[in-house]
Amino acid sequence: MVENETGQSESIRKLGEMIADIEFAMLTTAEADGALRSRPMATQQVEFAGDLWFFTRASSPKVDEVEHEHHVNVSYAKPDAQRYVSVSGKARLVRDREKFEELWKPSLKAWFPEGLDDPDLALLKVTVEQAEYWDSSSSAVVHLVGFVKAIVTGQPFHPGENEKLNLKQGA
Amino acid sequence: MVENETGQSESIRKLGEMIADIEFAMLTTAEADGALRSRPMATQQVEFAGDLWFFTRASSPKVDEVEHEHHVNVSYAKPDAQRYVSVSGKARLVRDREKFEELWKPSLKAWFPEGLDDPDLALLKVTVEQAEYWDSSSSAVVHLVGFVKAIVTGQPFHPGENEKLNLKQGA
Repeated sequence: MVENETGQSESIRKLGEMIADIEFAMLTTAEADGALRSRPMATQQVEFAGDLWFFTRASSPKVDEVEHEHHVNVSYAKPDAQRYVSVSGKARLVRDREKFEELWKPSLKAWFPEGLDDPDLALLKVTVEQAEYWDSSSSAVVHLVGFVKAIVTGQPFHPGENEKLNLKQGA
Repeated sequence: MVENETGQSESIRKLGEMIADIEFAMLTTAEADGALRSRPMATQQVEFAGDLWFFTRASSPKVDEVEHEHHVNVSYAKPDAQRYVSVSGKARLVRDREKFEELWKPSLKAWFPEGLDDPDLALLKVTVEQAEYWDSSSSAVVHLVGFVKAIVTGQPFHPGENEKLNLKQGA
């Protein structure tokens, strides 16, 4: 496994840049029987600081799935830029009024009519542990060739073609 | 869990339609330590008949991951149509010359110069067990509203808004 030489803050900045303009991510969780399921989740428009946050309902099925197994994957796809991002992390449910207020947008009221007082309102906090991205927007032809090659053959990318970001504390 | 009333063949047809024009899927697998990782995979252009097939290398890391844990998720995103598809299934490595020939495309030679004689050539066969999709292309406003609502709140879709396709034998 090739470790990226960049530090944690640079990894956070780069990952934030990669996902900033992607409106919906696919959140994958493991069910009790081991099956993996995913569903689209609206992404937050705040600056990425190392954790991913999604508004959800505490009673929704995927929260059960998350309570059963804390490992999740959040994937981002921007096909027209041939950009794909995989984020591995651990998810937990957070009911923090202060965090609700920080991330709340008026448009959310359509789905949570009671707003911040909705007793079912919750946030899914994903602590990012590893992230990888595939991006063909680089001007380097080698990058693009490597990108396509890795997709078709499933080979791991070489440094500079596929970046593996380690966001664990102290990495 | 709401079961779709359509039969297996109709589910296969519908899922095939949903993924037909999406070039790359994100394949999520579980690692030995439980972490979930995903990576883009080139999709096949043949008609979907109930299984998903991806050319890969038998020596690639994700094959190890698949050998460790057979559950996978394959997600498809088409943001401009607000279409998202989740496919849950089991993956195994297949080295079947006849299948290689059936799915082979000349363009693959760029990545497998030895073509069908490449000793590392393999197929990842995903037997689909469950699939769900979110699609806003319907002309029904209710459908669209339900779509957006479910994404933002994480609530399960109601029938007609989110379709859950069961592709297990005899379903």
